[in-house]
Amino acid sequence: MDEKERAITPATDSGLALSRRGFLRAGAAAGAMAAGTGAALAEGTPDPLITEVQPWAQGWGDGVDATPYGLPIRFEGDVVRRNVGWLTADVISSINFTPIHALDGTITPAGCAFERHHSGAIELAKEDYRLMIHGLVDKPLVFTYADLERFPRVNRTYFLECAANTGMEWAGAQLNGAQFTHGMIHNMEYSGVTLRTLLEEAGVKPEGKWIYVEGADASSNGRSIPLEKALDDCLVAFKANGEALRKEHGYPVRLCVPGWEGNMWVKWLRRIEVTENAVESREETSKYTDTLEDGTSRKWTWVMDAKSVVTSPSPQAPIKHGKGPLVITGLAWSGRGAITAVDVSIDGGKTWTEARLAAPGQDKALTRFYLDIEWDGSEMFLQSRATDETGYVQPTKNQLREIRGENSVYHNNCIQTWWVKANGEAENVEVS
Amino acid sequence: MDEKERAITPATDSGLALSRRGFLRAGAAAGAMAAGTGAALAEGTPDPLITEVQPWAQGWGDGVDATPYGLPIRFEGDVVRRNVGWLTADVISSINFTPIHALDGTITPAGCAFERHHSGAIELAKEDYRLMIHGLVDKPLVFTYADLERFPRVNRTYFLECAANTGMEWAGAQLNGAQFTHGMIHNMEYSGVTLRTLLEEAGVKPEGKWIYVEGADASSNGRSIPLEKALDDCLVAFKANGEALRKEHGYPVRLCVPGWEGNMWVKWLRRIEVTENAVESREETSKYTDTLEDGTSRKWTWVMDAKSVVTSPSPQAPIKHGKGPLVITGLAWSGRGAITAVDVSIDGGKTWTEARLAAPGQDKALTRFYLDIEWDGSEMFLQSRATDETGYVQPTKNQLREIRGENSVYHNNCIQTWWVKANGEAENVEVS
Repeated sequence: MDEKERAITPATDSGLALSRRGFLRAGAAAGAMAAGTGAALAEGTPDPLITEVQPWAQGWGDGVDATPYGLPIRFEGDVVRRNVGWLTADVISSINFTPIHALDGTITPAGCAFERHHSGAIELAKEDYRLMIHGLVDKPLVFTYADLERFPRVNRTYFLECAANTGMEWAGAQLNGAQFTHGMIHNMEYSGVTLRTLLEEAGVKPEGKWIYVEGADASSNGRSIPLEKALDDCLVAFKANGEALRKEHGYPVRLCVPGWEGNMWVKWLRRIEVTENAVESREETSKYTDTLEDGTSRKWTWVMDAKSVVTSPSPQAPIKHGKGPLVITGLAWSGRGAITAVDVSIDGGKTWTEARLAAPGQDKALTRFYLDIEWDGSEMFLQSRATDETGYVQPTKNQLREIRGENSVYHNNCIQTWWVKANGEAENVEVS
Repeated sequence: MDEKERAITPATDSGLALSRRGFLRAGAAAGAMAAGTGAALAEGTPDPLITEVQPWAQGWGDGVDATPYGLPIRFEGDVVRRNVGWLTADVISSINFTPIHALDGTITPAGCAFERHHSGAIELAKEDYRLMIHGLVDKPLVFTYADLERFPRVNRTYFLECAANTGMEWAGAQLNGAQFTHGMIHNMEYSGVTLRTLLEEAGVKPEGKWIYVEGADASSNGRSIPLEKALDDCLVAFKANGEALRKEHGYPVRLCVPGWEGNMWVKWLRRIEVTENAVESREETSKYTDTLEDGTSRKWTWVMDAKSVVTSPSPQAPIKHGKGPLVITGLAWSGRGAITAVDVSIDGGKTWTEARLAAPGQDKALTRFYLDIEWDGSEMFLQSRATDETGYVQPTKNQLREIRGENSVYHNNCIQTWWVKANGEAENVEVS
């Protein structure tokens, strides 16, 4: 991020105090209204679902032999990854978005977690896996999968976000749904060996300042990473959310580059070369650079800056009840550390109310936020705005455009707006 | 837990200082040995997996249309839940164990997470779901699923352990594998509404001291819970690890009773009655009580005391490499709060070394521990011993037997022993 962007001043919070009082009143009333909803059922016509013994209480359900490895129940068949046909030339070098509009909490289940391949998801058995560390090292090394399992292991939960997440929004509100605008992201608990451990094993020579990492797939997806980051918090991970990485997430071994763009988290990791300079490969020159307003491009914008999105209500998760208590929820994250606050606006950024974080922000991991309001049934222009531990505040789309114009692709961390109509449906819109 | 058990004195740590020094030396050497393993490959005969372009780098892998909802890669086909045929009369009222020997980290993926049913896993759609709160309340209420979604939500990560976990060990070392001795457990991030919120909505009358909870399945699995616990940290959960609960875990709504035996975490939650006294149902009298040495039984032993197990190496996860660096890892947990320490012994409890916790212990959630040693290739009697924030230390099997004999079923939180042989294979054994 450059200095100009760093210096963007967030919209004034002048309306906040008034708004906050309003929301606190609403919060206090929320319980009572929800009780009204429940009570109406209890007090009205007897509900056969309560008063009569239902079919599912009259016989056996599935035995434990039904699913050695289970899948979601059939009613959740729409909580799946989705791709967008027109976005890429084919399905091989393409993107599958996480259904964040339908999830809660912070952990992304592997089965519906974002995937992006440059030449498809390859099948690579542990026995066939090798990792080579070479270049400016004292001792070039080749590790088998079994070798890696013998090094001290760590566990860390991190988000992975594609640099192109929200990239279609530069030119205006495009895709209608949080899954599509913000679903190039996932958040998992990784187990693996620190990259530092392996690099120290090989012994980095004093002239080594970068590493160049490659995957075992046809694209190889080579990226340069400064040695300082490599020795800081990068992981060579075998497991995600407790189990082996999925095929589409780099089985058996991927790199984790916490807080940095997902493309650098090389999957099917096969080679780490210690170099004096960046390689400046295709994936870090013609791709994954940021076109600016003046037509020039800037490179090496690796960090994913603070960002957030309301996941519900949203275009794929409309309000289906009337006015009254409404849970507004979403996700926030920062590649520079922990999220410290998320503000929510229902009037397109004129006034803001601080949301409740479900847990204190964790370093470079997703944070869930909630705001419980009393919805009056009128339209809302719903926004969220994240602040991270560096004090940086998520900018508006227009603030970003002043610097980068409308032709950029990557690193769009703008405030998102959902126009929630009186009927509860929501649309992706822009507010000026 | 009674006072006698509470007063059990852990084995002396007299050997610890010496052992710890030994382990620290081993730890320092571990890197070098692992390097030796890797270097041998690099320096020996060229490895075609490194020097030749492999088939998976010569074509396309799977496109993003392959798996809207993905499953593990086929090579991981043995990382599945398993049941034990002879343990229960049928597969309907039975148990499916988590493959903890093959997992790492702390999150249990839903697909292979422990399940236990009393009349099978039922299919209950959100539209058909109702939750009634009645009895000693100001206002009986019936909630639909949509009603529940309008209350303020929380996220919490908790372990669920069946009271019968490790129950087969009372009579001696039985099942050969951590999955079977300790796999009636899982650990997930839940999203839902606190039970307190819903009870306050209904308004508990002063004479209400207990709740009685039931599921919508044929067994109903009714259990009494003291009101104090109900108002403390219980959750009415809709989601686990981000997504809707799986069918086998109580879709669409289950109760979470953090730190207390899994049977109380009623699935397909349909009814909460506020009562003056415990109902003393079948599930809390003839079942889920503890037979003691003198033939009497004690009831209401809800809390799962501090416990741990080495998951690798273990009978299902033998050591496949020779002597040298070895990662010993496992899980620890306590229903009374956070784990503060885990000690590991390789000599059957004579000497102990403090393991490294992958992250500070969390309240009533699984904690991963690691101990990195230099294995000399000789047999080990591997044990782990957890300490929780109350200062309680996990007891030996014999210490528990002195109080409860060998005919108990539930609440066996004894120290587990794996006999790891010189060839790397491991067996479930007892040490006296």
